[in-house]
Amino acid sequence: MESQLPGRDTSVMQVACDIETVRSFLAPARREGKRIGFVPTMGALHEGHLTLIRQARRDCAVVVVSIYVNPLQFGAGEDFSRYPRQFERDREMCEREGTDLLFCPTDALVYPDGYATNVVVERLGDGLCGRSRPGHFRGVTTVVLKLFGIVSPDVAYFGWKDAQQAIIIKRMVADLNIAVEIVTMPTVREADGLAMSSRNQYLDAEARRQAPAIYAALEKARAAWREQGIADCNTLAQIIRDHIRLNTSGRIDYVEIVSLDRLAPLGCVAPGNTLVAVAVYLGAARLIDNIRL
Amino acid sequence: MESQLPGRDTSVMQVACDIETVRSFLAPARREGKRIGFVPTMGALHEGHLTLIRQARRDCAVVVVSIYVNPLQFGAGEDFSRYPRQFERDREMCEREGTDLLFCPTDALVYPDGYATNVVVERLGDGLCGRSRPGHFRGVTTVVLKLFGIVSPDVAYFGWKDAQQAIIIKRMVADLNIAVEIVTMPTVREADGLAMSSRNQYLDAEARRQAPAIYAALEKARAAWREQGIADCNTLAQIIRDHIRLNTSGRIDYVEIVSLDRLAPLGCVAPGNTLVAVAVYLGAARLIDNIRL
Repeated sequence: MESQLPGRDTSVMQVACDIETVRSFLAPARREGKRIGFVPTMGALHEGHLTLIRQARRDCAVVVVSIYVNPLQFGAGEDFSRYPRQFERDREMCEREGTDLLFCPTDALVYPDGYATNVVVERLGDGLCGRSRPGHFRGVTTVVLKLFGIVSPDVAYFGWKDAQQAIIIKRMVADLNIAVEIVTMPTVREADGLAMSSRNQYLDAEARRQAPAIYAALEKARAAWREQGIADCNTLAQIIRDHIRLNTSGRIDYVEIVSLDRLAPLGCVAPGNTLVAVAVYLGAARLIDNIRL
Repeated sequence: MESQLPGRDTSVMQVACDIETVRSFLAPARREGKRIGFVPTMGALHEGHLTLIRQARRDCAVVVVSIYVNPLQFGAGEDFSRYPRQFERDREMCEREGTDLLFCPTDALVYPDGYATNVVVERLGDGLCGRSRPGHFRGVTTVVLKLFGIVSPDVAYFGWKDAQQAIIIKRMVADLNIAVEIVTMPTVREADGLAMSSRNQYLDAEARRQAPAIYAALEKARAAWREQGIADCNTLAQIIRDHIRLNTSGRIDYVEIVSLDRLAPLGCVAPGNTLVAVAVYLGAARLIDNIRL
């Protein structure tokens, strides 16, 4: 039924700013049992996001993308006001990837007067990014649950760069018995290894030059484990810290090695259940990255 | 399409103890766009519950009732362990009222190992019952959201005796953009005015004799407002307290006069937006009741 023309007929993408338009757009597809795929984003799209949209396009009859810079997940003094907003470019990218519906709500729609509800996943959000960003994951789970309520997707796509976020969202979905499948896709990287992120736009030339050292440090730890058999997490974390300190002018927020299922600190690498995660303040950005062992 | 025989063919009620049975039972109805009505209960059913089920039966093609005594909404030292459990009687009552599906999950199904998610409605749960039952409404909103996730009803029914609960659930549903309509039904009372409650079973003969004084006190305040034009909330609350103290051996937990929309204390009756709510420890029970002015 889909157009097979190269470049695909993209003129059909609908842009919705209100909930009723979303629901009425999706109602026929839902009635017909068509699979609805959803990619929630904060805009400033890059190849990481496009990978999610493409996977949704492959898996689903209907692809919904949302763009919403969610104030609830930014703390005081964080980058909410300067977070990149480039709607026209984002809209074109979504259209080019075959998005069917682009949902761009306003703050007044998402958090109207009298708004009072929060969704909290205990424990999983306490460590890693949660420690330096209190309230961040509560903001994420709340807005994601709201977006799920509006879109009611069959499947939703998240990037693995935000591993803690993905793990927390999976927990929330399981705990609240939400009938949506959560698919995570691998981190997409620049040629030099830097994990793609909308916040990379904050980096000046020198910081951008240094930034690949973060992933290189993770890979160095992986090599130490694989090739030298170093499984002690303190030693591996120190390898990462040393490499970042030696090769960047950044300030390390955390280097943590935790279990994938519970995000609990590990003494020793548990093969297949180990997340090595870092956050570094570098130039004007706070960058995060991770690998699995 | 429904049987019109008197007494209705009740042999068709399905009892489900797991989520997949619920979803597969409801899937055909959902595909056909049939309206699904849902009455969540903690069992120990009385006329109040039956009124909800009957309304659902009138409004909807499919009626789902759940029975689950939710541990999360009971505080330490509360009546979780002695809360009346009378499944066989409840099952028969549901069947007699034409329930299509009775969902009776276990604790292990609702809160499996590793469960970590809570839904919190801020402010609305701070006063009234929330003050003496910290965590109660968080338990209520969490389990109701989970049940909504499992059943995905079009409409759900709640009794007005638990006015604060109904107001909080409406807020949660609006805030989280859940596509369910919340219908509240008036408090059902015994002939002597006592609000029906599963907890009335805790009352011994003497406490049961005294219990109607709670509603009588509310009606006395209503009369003072209507007939004598007393609109000062302190005065009205005092009328209620005096009547309860004079006519029962109970201990008043609270008498509060608040706005219906925000549950904020009122100085003066705001006609159409006033909730007069009381809680009284009487004998072995904690009884609540309310009226609107």
